Amino acid sequence: MNIKIPTLILDEQKCRVNIWRMAEKAQRSNTISRPHFKTHQSHQIGRWFRDFDIDKITVSSVQMAQYFANDGWRDISIAFPVNLREIDEINALNQNIRLNVLIESKNILEKLENLVQEEIGVFVKIDTGYHRTGIRVEDEQYISELMKQFSVTKRCEFKGFLVHNGQTYKAKTIAEIKEIHRVSLEKLLALKEKYITQFPDLILSMGDTPSMSVLDDFSGVDEIRPGNFVFYDLMQSDLGVCTEKDIAVAMACPVVAKHKDRNQLVIYGGGVHLSKESIQIDGQAVFGKMVFLKESKWEIPEKPFYLVSLSQEHGIIQLDDELIHNISLGDIVGVLPVHSCLTADLQKNYLTFDKRKIPKV
Amino acid sequence: MNIKIPTLILDEQKCRVNIWRMAEKAQRSNTISRPHFKTHQSHQIGRWFRDFDIDKITVSSVQMAQYFANDGWRDISIAFPVNLREIDEINALNQNIRLNVLIESKNILEKLENLVQEEIGVFVKIDTGYHRTGIRVEDEQYISELMKQFSVTKRCEFKGFLVHNGQTYKAKTIAEIKEIHRVSLEKLLALKEKYITQFPDLILSMGDTPSMSVLDDFSGVDEIRPGNFVFYDLMQSDLGVCTEKDIAVAMACPVVAKHKDRNQLVIYGGGVHLSKESIQIDGQAVFGKMVFLKESKWEIPEKPFYLVSLSQEHGIIQLDDELIHNISLGDIVGVLPVHSCLTADLQKNYLTFDKRKIPKV
Repeated sequence: MNIKIPTLILDEQKCRVNIWRMAEKAQRSNTISRPHFKTHQSHQIGRWFRDFDIDKITVSSVQMAQYFANDGWRDISIAFPVNLREIDEINALNQNIRLNVLIESKNILEKLENLVQEEIGVFVKIDTGYHRTGIRVEDEQYISELMKQFSVTKRCEFKGFLVHNGQTYKAKTIAEIKEIHRVSLEKLLALKEKYITQFPDLILSMGDTPSMSVLDDFSGVDEIRPGNFVFYDLMQSDLGVCTEKDIAVAMACPVVAKHKDRNQLVIYGGGVHLSKESIQIDGQAVFGKMVFLKESKWEIPEKPFYLVSLSQEHGIIQLDDELIHNISLGDIVGVLPVHSCLTADLQKNYLTFDKRKIPKV
Repeated sequence: MNIKIPTLILDEQKCRVNIWRMAEKAQRSNTISRPHFKTHQSHQIGRWFRDFDIDKITVSSVQMAQYFANDGWRDISIAFPVNLREIDEINALNQNIRLNVLIESKNILEKLENLVQEEIGVFVKIDTGYHRTGIRVEDEQYISELMKQFSVTKRCEFKGFLVHNGQTYKAKTIAEIKEIHRVSLEKLLALKEKYITQFPDLILSMGDTPSMSVLDDFSGVDEIRPGNFVFYDLMQSDLGVCTEKDIAVAMACPVVAKHKDRNQLVIYGGGVHLSKESIQIDGQAVFGKMVFLKESKWEIPEKPFYLVSLSQEHGIIQLDDELIHNISLGDIVGVLPVHSCLTADLQKNYLTFDKRKIPKV
């Protein structure tokens, strides 16, 4: 491939399979798919979801909602605690599309009710164990007071309870991920039971790629919002929720120096291209994994070679005595990213194997 | 301040003082200033250096060189192992400005000599201990062969030896930073001595903000290339090479949730705004430090409050029993970044206290 500078290669086939697999599982479970588009942030990739009759999406910022509304998406949830400093933008957007926002306090609900100009969908963020955001599911009193508030709001329409079990990223086994999901869902179903009479349309919306990837069916979950699965990455394969072959993006990086004395390649590809996200493998920080880039695919070496260090523009790949002789200055190597959401966020576009540039936000 | 979304605030005064202090020290030492512009990546901030008669700069990519050439910079070093896949762009740039590139192998020098269309400046990267890139200073045989090559090159003009002592970032004390610099410079001076007769104009170019910040004078060093000092950051103050008061950028972040049970603030400000770079403080990963944002400055609380967790868009600040009551939903807090180069790279512009938007690349 005629690559000059670090370029994120998208394997369209893998990406479409990832989309299909998740959509198909949701359809089988009779669960609404509302995929999170914060990972790819691209109109064109977003359109691939429409092949599976997906017409609802999740984003993580008002600007991202605007971007996708501009491409015809008409039902968008912003899965981030609503930032009332952006109320003008929210009101503008809410005129044109069906918008859902997220709250976790009575105070914000009250303010939101006063500030929105038209009816808006509101999800309540519930915390069943991640402890990043949300009302603890055990805090029944507070939830009950909040729900009472919804019985009198005129513009804020309660849509349901929303959870993101990010603690699955710390799980050691697939069984543990499934258990986190099971316990969380059990608590949410009890919550739903409590309020379903008062709010017959309330739904349970659950996120996180790890759970959604390892579950065989989503029974009990009304809506899913995974995002990362569209590309997957080393963090997910390390967790065991995908294989490395499912990873749909690799950074193509020119080799700019070689150090045979320490079997290291220096690549043009650093923190500003890949992000500084790392995972620990055998007690060492790893910033990516090398693959061999071919004309229409990449090949994953049987023996792993990792990106062991990352500066602003440089990356260091640790090779062995043999491989260091087979890679030359000026070659292009591929790097599977640790966290594809952050890597993708740093790009202006993707390059497919048939040399199409796919722009993003 | 009327901030809606995460916004990088630039304290122009602090920034100009940082620039002045470094320039003044270089002038006093009779050393050329060739500051690295990869940190701010901004035409306007670049112009502030011209007040100190600085007309030579360093960048880390060909695109960055193009960007600054477009603002009238006519003497630019690209301090990154030259990527010959960009030879067309290098040749185009080299027609218009005095361009220096960096090599560390005979193979690349030979290719470069064949590919460049006009005379180009070439620095040789020397490794005196960082072991990221460069020819080990002990490898006298290889250096000697490379220097012989320069005696016959017609377009590649040898400029000097260039070092980046990035290992200073791992130093435990100021004395250790000074010692790294002293030992490195000693080796470089011996190298210079060896080749000065053959190349009477050769210079020693040294980088890294830690060394250049703690040295009182740069005697023996012909040219300095620090970059980060323009803003500094927590990594540098943690090293002790600046104070927190010298840090010239802070991310303004809306508070979107509060969790009194665990004394945590959730801010709109995540890895896509600050980068995932972290430092360890008391055994804990820290992604930033909270400051109080006022109309024309920020105040650093005496007791430190850190950003302890970072997702794509969320940040979590750990407060205490008292402060959690003094900050409200919708407030704006400031965050001093861990690594200002990476944080700045994620921005489209800076905002000054007098409400000017300073665009960047």
